[in-house]
Amino acid sequence: MTETIPNPLLKRAFLTPNRPMIRFKDRDYSFKEMYERALKQAGHLQSQGVKKGDYVAVLLQNHVDSVVMLLSLQLIGGIAVILNNRLTAEELAWQIEDSNSILFITEEGFRDKLARLQLEIPWLWKATIDTSNSMSPAVQDEVNLDDVCSVMYTSGTTGKPKGVLQTYGNHWWSATGSALNLGISEDDCWLCTVPLFHISGFSILMRSIIYGMRMVLHEGFNEGLVLETIETEKVTIMSVVTTMLSRLVEALNHRTLPSRFRCMLLGGGPAPLPLLEKCVEKNIPVFQSYGMTETSSQIVTLSPEYSISKLGSAGKALFPSQVKIADSNGKEIEANQSGEILVKGPNVTSGYLNREVESRKQFVDGWLKTGDVGYLDEEGFLYVLDRRSDLIISGGENIYPAEIEGILTSHPDIEDAGVIGAADHQWGQVPVAFVKKIGSVAEEEIIHYCSERLARYKLPKKIYFVDELPRNASRKLLRRELRQMLDK
Amino acid sequence: MTETIPNPLLKRAFLTPNRPMIRFKDRDYSFKEMYERALKQAGHLQSQGVKKGDYVAVLLQNHVDSVVMLLSLQLIGGIAVILNNRLTAEELAWQIEDSNSILFITEEGFRDKLARLQLEIPWLWKATIDTSNSMSPAVQDEVNLDDVCSVMYTSGTTGKPKGVLQTYGNHWWSATGSALNLGISEDDCWLCTVPLFHISGFSILMRSIIYGMRMVLHEGFNEGLVLETIETEKVTIMSVVTTMLSRLVEALNHRTLPSRFRCMLLGGGPAPLPLLEKCVEKNIPVFQSYGMTETSSQIVTLSPEYSISKLGSAGKALFPSQVKIADSNGKEIEANQSGEILVKGPNVTSGYLNREVESRKQFVDGWLKTGDVGYLDEEGFLYVLDRRSDLIISGGENIYPAEIEGILTSHPDIEDAGVIGAADHQWGQVPVAFVKKIGSVAEEEIIHYCSERLARYKLPKKIYFVDELPRNASRKLLRRELRQMLDK
Repeated sequence: MTETIPNPLLKRAFLTPNRPMIRFKDRDYSFKEMYERALKQAGHLQSQGVKKGDYVAVLLQNHVDSVVMLLSLQLIGGIAVILNNRLTAEELAWQIEDSNSILFITEEGFRDKLARLQLEIPWLWKATIDTSNSMSPAVQDEVNLDDVCSVMYTSGTTGKPKGVLQTYGNHWWSATGSALNLGISEDDCWLCTVPLFHISGFSILMRSIIYGMRMVLHEGFNEGLVLETIETEKVTIMSVVTTMLSRLVEALNHRTLPSRFRCMLLGGGPAPLPLLEKCVEKNIPVFQSYGMTETSSQIVTLSPEYSISKLGSAGKALFPSQVKIADSNGKEIEANQSGEILVKGPNVTSGYLNREVESRKQFVDGWLKTGDVGYLDEEGFLYVLDRRSDLIISGGENIYPAEIEGILTSHPDIEDAGVIGAADHQWGQVPVAFVKKIGSVAEEEIIHYCSERLARYKLPKKIYFVDELPRNASRKLLRRELRQMLDK
Repeated sequence: MTETIPNPLLKRAFLTPNRPMIRFKDRDYSFKEMYERALKQAGHLQSQGVKKGDYVAVLLQNHVDSVVMLLSLQLIGGIAVILNNRLTAEELAWQIEDSNSILFITEEGFRDKLARLQLEIPWLWKATIDTSNSMSPAVQDEVNLDDVCSVMYTSGTTGKPKGVLQTYGNHWWSATGSALNLGISEDDCWLCTVPLFHISGFSILMRSIIYGMRMVLHEGFNEGLVLETIETEKVTIMSVVTTMLSRLVEALNHRTLPSRFRCMLLGGGPAPLPLLEKCVEKNIPVFQSYGMTETSSQIVTLSPEYSISKLGSAGKALFPSQVKIADSNGKEIEANQSGEILVKGPNVTSGYLNREVESRKQFVDGWLKTGDVGYLDEEGFLYVLDRRSDLIISGGENIYPAEIEGILTSHPDIEDAGVIGAADHQWGQVPVAFVKKIGSVAEEEIIHYCSERLARYKLPKKIYFVDELPRNASRKLLRRELRQMLDK
């Protein structure tokens, strides 16, 4: 039986109306206030025709008003298709159309980027939303845990991005699974400097509602501001990716974090051992974790009692979830042998929006094939050796080579292309491209061509011209050989 | 989609094997040790023919070995029919047969009581279980949240007791719902002096597994030992009923509880205001609550921030749950008007074992009719005015008049009988009977007759002989009038 629970925001505003929910730019907003703002917004959205089950695309920056917008959709059962701020207008248009969104909500800051964007659905500019005459919305008192709450796009090894379906159940189980591991205290305060459009940021918002926990929202990551905020706002937990953690460690210098700060939740790719060792030295409570958009944030986390003895491991699967290692035939393999990481649990997506066939391929007997490589030690701790063989993680953002290769080969002077990640001191990895040209085209010209079609962080940082791309008999690109070429 | 999660004990023993799970009589047992003991026991049970989905009746005292027995059933998917220790042999036999249990497990302490018990199913004496040559059991790696975990009997307003089905989902949602209200800390330790055969005790065991939390198990309630244990074992939470709380307050005298003690969870019926006021005075953090076997423990709890301003209220429904007040037609009624309390949520039972018709009658649109009376104030706080009109709560035990009346009228010299609760200083309430006799029979004789057929706590403390029982035209007993007769 699929469970039905009260609408989370409604219930939270009822349970603890006066507790602070969110702090943004020197002001606290209580659960009641956020609920009332969301309710007005929901009335306006409803007057625009948004009904339960409708997809609504949102392109928003980290801001308290963006939170209100996301919450207003939850009140009336609208599904937020949450777009990555860094995408180009073309990339955004593609996702908006692919999701069959009936409305596109964005804000002034993106006006230039969106200037030439042609959409067949109505736009709503956040700042101009008039809630003064909004109708009284038909609030969904309850949600079914199978109802879809949000959609975020990721890419496969080939082809276009796919919308990951995240249900209320996925978010609920993610939040409670995390709570059973990290504990929940009335004094908790979670600092969110990661984007709300990523599952890393959005999951903090969901936890805030489910736990009744205060969150502090920053527009972006600034290490100085973070250290100051941890002190002044009594922050106890923070989500970071490796790049952010190294900048924090550097900025801390000889100082330490306050003792009430109890969890630095590290996600978004493997962390180098020297950095983790530095954190142990400085007494920073790092919780390594492993997760993805498809698991509604962390699914594997290193428990406090093992943070030192299992340094470098991502930990064990959270209580409601499971992880196993399989060979290329999907057969489970023994401890200390590496293979593909498979995950299962009520926090794991049921599939991709309008992609039934691809969704089915991604699952074996209820287990999601992540494409990532790792092993479990004899005690069951997961070690992630490498994210999906082709995946490039740059400053916490996932970059999918197939997407960049598709743009490159659309250039009239390029016959073939291959993209891999190159090590980078600042970002962990950056994409670089190998190109077989047929005409006369320069590196700058290719990068300019890409920049009109790809988000900035996806742009190849270097173009290597080659006579032929290494491909096997069935024309599959051998990225391994590209990597060897790069290492020479 | 019904969710599947790892088998709770298996997962907990995997996640935190070395954390202490339970303390019993000056010894700690880790999760790993309890798992290993349960595994051996499970092998033995399996060799006795117990398979997934089989009902197994258990009559056990609060003891670490009883916990092992309950856990061993969970490992192989056996369903524990948990019997109340205070029942007579006849009452036990009835429940064992009604549940179609395939095996009856009990212990030496009950040998005298059970001496004349005739059962058609095999017995197992706990102490004689030989785990040395137990087979390797087929452990259920996963549980479906709809799988039944335990059955506990309660009675309706008429007729025989009914077995309440408690699924793994019910226990899971109860535990996480409570955690979202009370928080979870690694330092938590829950003292269990209530019986494991009640949902109040069994739910502590389930929370221990799900939270990874240490529990201290006492054989029974002794206020002196409790106060000592709270100090020495660093207890932070304890479940009590009103009688226990008043004895604790008295025993405390001028002392106070340690500041780490953070929650006195009070259930099992309404508490008198003077007692609650004494607790406020003494700084005892009482969390009033409301719940029943059908809700897998508390469903409504008073949040810390309201414990003083809403003194006397049971609080608000836990996050995943809902409560409303309805009139006799099932229509929701407004704030401050009293009516029947209806509850809903994933912690609420789906019904009674082998009682489809009665189960259906108990629910309206997914809401369970509790039969209890109360109101919600304008802020949504529940005030329980009275438990189910006929229900007698004596020292935390539920007593159902219909059951006692059935025994009384089975006596050849009694034509009609009615039972109600009388106020009692020590137990809150005790049952008293009104009897219309046809022969010549004395009070002592009737009580003796009952004592052979009813658990001690159910025995009428007083028999009033009457010429006629007050009944309406359709022969329904008017308990209200009995109460007036008593008050005269």
